[in-house]
Amino acid sequence: MGETEEWGYKRAGVDLEAADRTIDLITREVSSTYTPAVLKGLGAFGGLFELPTGYRRPVLVASTDGVGTKVMLAARLAAADPLGPAGPQASAILATIGSDLVNHCINDILVQGAKPLFFLDYVASSRLVPEVTAAIVKGVAAACRKAGVALLGGETAEMPGVYHDGEFDLAGTIVGIVEHDEIVDGSTVAAGDVLLALPSNGLQTNGFSLARAAVGEALAEPVATVAAAEPVGTTIAEALLAPHQSFLPYVEPLLARGVVKAMAHITGGGLPGNLPRTLPAGLGARLERGSWDEPAIFAALQQRRAISDAEMFEVFNMGIGFVVVVAAERAAEVLADAAGEWRRVGEVTSASGVKIS
Amino acid sequence: MGETEEWGYKRAGVDLEAADRTIDLITREVSSTYTPAVLKGLGAFGGLFELPTGYRRPVLVASTDGVGTKVMLAARLAAADPLGPAGPQASAILATIGSDLVNHCINDILVQGAKPLFFLDYVASSRLVPEVTAAIVKGVAAACRKAGVALLGGETAEMPGVYHDGEFDLAGTIVGIVEHDEIVDGSTVAAGDVLLALPSNGLQTNGFSLARAAVGEALAEPVATVAAAEPVGTTIAEALLAPHQSFLPYVEPLLARGVVKAMAHITGGGLPGNLPRTLPAGLGARLERGSWDEPAIFAALQQRRAISDAEMFEVFNMGIGFVVVVAAERAAEVLADAAGEWRRVGEVTSASGVKIS
Repeated sequence: MGETEEWGYKRAGVDLEAADRTIDLITREVSSTYTPAVLKGLGAFGGLFELPTGYRRPVLVASTDGVGTKVMLAARLAAADPLGPAGPQASAILATIGSDLVNHCINDILVQGAKPLFFLDYVASSRLVPEVTAAIVKGVAAACRKAGVALLGGETAEMPGVYHDGEFDLAGTIVGIVEHDEIVDGSTVAAGDVLLALPSNGLQTNGFSLARAAVGEALAEPVATVAAAEPVGTTIAEALLAPHQSFLPYVEPLLARGVVKAMAHITGGGLPGNLPRTLPAGLGARLERGSWDEPAIFAALQQRRAISDAEMFEVFNMGIGFVVVVAAERAAEVLADAAGEWRRVGEVTSASGVKIS
Repeated sequence: MGETEEWGYKRAGVDLEAADRTIDLITREVSSTYTPAVLKGLGAFGGLFELPTGYRRPVLVASTDGVGTKVMLAARLAAADPLGPAGPQASAILATIGSDLVNHCINDILVQGAKPLFFLDYVASSRLVPEVTAAIVKGVAAACRKAGVALLGGETAEMPGVYHDGEFDLAGTIVGIVEHDEIVDGSTVAAGDVLLALPSNGLQTNGFSLARAAVGEALAEPVATVAAAEPVGTTIAEALLAPHQSFLPYVEPLLARGVVKAMAHITGGGLPGNLPRTLPAGLGARLERGSWDEPAIFAALQQRRAISDAEMFEVFNMGIGFVVVVAAERAAEVLADAAGEWRRVGEVTSASGVKIS
């Protein structure tokens, strides 16, 4: 703790100047996320956030997550920027990882109907490079601003004996709020309900251990050389780094409309792993492949390592970022009004398990 | 994210069985911390915590922290257990680190008068050893139970390319609550106010980079060979691992009594770094050395590396874990009633800066 505190650094022979510069670089980013709920000037040990009023029975929803081994890909590609760690390519890649983390967390608590309030991050690395940490926090702050989330606190740690040279890890915690009787818990889901999906733009933040094994050193190859049917121009590295989106703007109108019975954020475990978590015991889901788009990167990965379809679906989201369950009679209305983002991809079945056909 | 999700593990060649066993081992620990405020059975994407009622203007106070390089010492000493990572010595050491983290976070938000509500942890390592992770989480859960804090969620990540072999990192986030007009912000502090201190039992979780450099390989030596005036029997390793205490039970009665003007948790930066954060601009503090006990480990460290007194105070807490500022006329009453835990260690001065004489 307090490995970034100035004295801890200085006296332990770690770079005090780097710690100060990091603070300088991130202060503006952090404060740019402050909403009126953040109470400033009241001490520096913890962040203070005034609860929104108007809730009858407020429930906080919290989640902690990391970005998994996507950090390794980001660290490697950022280090390749010829202009160094502060170069534009490195900064953009590192910022992506920061946004990934926030958006993943937003989606995780959104599943239960929660509106995100504030976020705290933890960045740890082998060596504190102020521009690297600042770029990551910049991405965190950008995603926070976009969602109206306050970046209330965080910790930056430099631990050369713990982390491999050049590597970093990033974790974060989100806290949101939901009215008790508006918690989305899947209890009204019934067979015949419809699955509406929002697209992912790639792996988001899951399956990177398998993906890295599949692509090996082929990061600079175009996705299309392996998945020839797709448009050219994007490298495998770029496709893998596609940022994790927040689905909050798409889901909020559906929540307001009162049509949402259950939701699932498609993360580690893919559709078979995540859909059942949202369904009452005994029910399952059938999805019709082809009813949504699959980003080319998935075919590229599958081809390189001859991964089975079953395994692909169990590791990757396969193009579905988020699923909402609605009653069959409300599906058409959502699809008509929701400006083309949503796809009808399947339905709830009376047999358990997830079938993809 | 979801690097511990079963499919992510299995398909990426990581140990699925280890992930399952870890979950098995920690489930009971985690649920043992649940208070009635935790809403169970409502989905697994985020933890749900019903806000306590009766607050007029509730403010959430949140903090994220790590345990710094104390994790390296713990990993090294735990690995030395002849009975392996599940041995009693290893388990106890790893549990200490878990409790350290929770107690540090409790103290950090206590400084502003907050009562802790819930905690989330993040454990990442080179390789998932279920017994290691379980021992850490057991310590987290024990400290949570003791403080009435719900362990609402967490994430366990296995990232061999990011962490050095055998190393792990641990971070956590605490969320507490305080009534808006009861936030302790130091605004009423005046020169002549008295500093009352609670003792630390050692380094707590700060100064480990310097401490590790100072002790080198001498971990098994008794503290007393270097600080001969002290009682024998404790090794340097044991002294360094002394757990970070929660000061909540000692401070709560003072808050109830309404005597607290300001507080400081003595972490990285020591007394000179942390006391000024709690005082109005322009004011300082004078402490009288000898008015509190200094655990023998500090003299042991100082002697081994010839560290100056000034540096010792800037890196280590030097035996003071927590400071409360009270009006001079209330100090005697606290000292009389508080069963001997508190020491009067100094006073607030009209000149800024921290002087220790």
